[in-house]
Amino acid sequence: MPEAPLGSSFWVDGQRSASSPLPDRGQEFGDGLFETMLVVQGRPMLLHLHQDRFAAGFTALGFAGRVPELSDLIAPALAADSQLPRQILRVTYSRAAVERGYAPGDSVDHHCVIRLTELSPARLSPATLGVSTVQLSHQPLLAGIKHLNRLEQVLAAAQRSALGVDEVITCDQQGRPVAVSSGNLFIRQGEALLTPRLGQCGIAGTRRRHILEGMAADTGFVASEEDFSLDALRNADEVFFCNTVIGVRPVAAFEDRCWEETPAANALSERFDEELGL
Amino acid sequence: MPEAPLGSSFWVDGQRSASSPLPDRGQEFGDGLFETMLVVQGRPMLLHLHQDRFAAGFTALGFAGRVPELSDLIAPALAADSQLPRQILRVTYSRAAVERGYAPGDSVDHHCVIRLTELSPARLSPATLGVSTVQLSHQPLLAGIKHLNRLEQVLAAAQRSALGVDEVITCDQQGRPVAVSSGNLFIRQGEALLTPRLGQCGIAGTRRRHILEGMAADTGFVASEEDFSLDALRNADEVFFCNTVIGVRPVAAFEDRCWEETPAANALSERFDEELGL
Repeated sequence: MPEAPLGSSFWVDGQRSASSPLPDRGQEFGDGLFETMLVVQGRPMLLHLHQDRFAAGFTALGFAGRVPELSDLIAPALAADSQLPRQILRVTYSRAAVERGYAPGDSVDHHCVIRLTELSPARLSPATLGVSTVQLSHQPLLAGIKHLNRLEQVLAAAQRSALGVDEVITCDQQGRPVAVSSGNLFIRQGEALLTPRLGQCGIAGTRRRHILEGMAADTGFVASEEDFSLDALRNADEVFFCNTVIGVRPVAAFEDRCWEETPAANALSERFDEELGL
Repeated sequence: MPEAPLGSSFWVDGQRSASSPLPDRGQEFGDGLFETMLVVQGRPMLLHLHQDRFAAGFTALGFAGRVPELSDLIAPALAADSQLPRQILRVTYSRAAVERGYAPGDSVDHHCVIRLTELSPARLSPATLGVSTVQLSHQPLLAGIKHLNRLEQVLAAAQRSALGVDEVITCDQQGRPVAVSSGNLFIRQGEALLTPRLGQCGIAGTRRRHILEGMAADTGFVASEEDFSLDALRNADEVFFCNTVIGVRPVAAFEDRCWEETPAANALSERFDEELGL
């Protein structure tokens, strides 16, 4: 676990609160979006990338009105509780329409729940990796965005402890790796970093995008979106995954394949720490 | 709309309340189940079918502990508010684990939200039908159960008003009809009633099951699970759909095809009313 269970604080629609109002279509249907951000001494990291994905989800779900600024949504929580060195901030933004039933209507009413959790900084050791039997379904209308329908990730993550590994690969229904249960997946072949395409399933992580759009080049690698097989992963020079909470984590072992050197993951991790002022 | 907007009452974990406690994995990930029941003068209809589906979902999502009895969960709400002639009761049952992240853990903690909405009885006229562009993804691990990840249904239902129809057919990604946005779909060919298989996607409705397991035979028809094409639907002798709120509703028109006689839908509707003492 990357964090000690130090407890969370909640803000609901701008006010500190321990409960959220009913009805809420987020709770009823998962009709909403979320973003999970790293906050360092009160400052949200890579906010523009979170905002871009949030805006894409807002459009994909057909939310009414203008896309809110995440910086506005999170301001009350950060103003009240910004002295901690490192926190994880989750914004959950859902439709709040009061009519019963699936049809979302065209109201701009919404609920916004902020969860702020203190994170105890800890460099994670290289991970052991397994494969989840949960195969992600193809749904191009929802692929890439960070919506609230996450049962596939929940079922996959539940298999980590059952398999005795730190993380599991999630494949699509053709058996192609897409991601890991809680982040994006990369392999290295020489200087090339490959991460699966996400047009049919998966979540387009902000760290993944940051690596693709510059950080890889800054550290001497060439990153691109390209699908690969589990066999290619076994034969890769290096494997790592990334998310907001852990940054970049190298993989030590997958089945009987082990990796001792993880130069790309190390270089990217250091670069993240530099950028974040850590 | 089958109901007047008469407002809803809420019970949370057995107490009347207008808000639900945080954190809730139902709200965070759609990590939970729901059932929507028709309550006639305080009595929940077809409770054993709802219980069966709830139990199947409880197992599919890997919830810890014993399957709760829906009758226990809904008792406080019904005891407090059972004098109305007809109500819709929604039970939302979600994992409440407090750790951050997708992994569900093995706690039996949960939240249970009951929404009780008065329903103004109104016989609906035969429906106009369109086809949604939202194609349901295949996910055998979640097919059939009534979990909280319902964005596909939300997006499909949103197209009803855009298309100017009462209901839309949802197909799978091979273009085969699976259901309608808010219920199950049947076609009639002579005395045969066909409804699509739900092993890959869709929700196994309680009314659908009741028709398949006896009510069709009671009204002189032979019902079975069998996939059919949109062309077969166009050429069918009759088309109807069903759910808890509306019972059975005949289809009047799909594109340029119209149906004037709907004997199976009429017979099933009357039979439902008799069984429910309406």
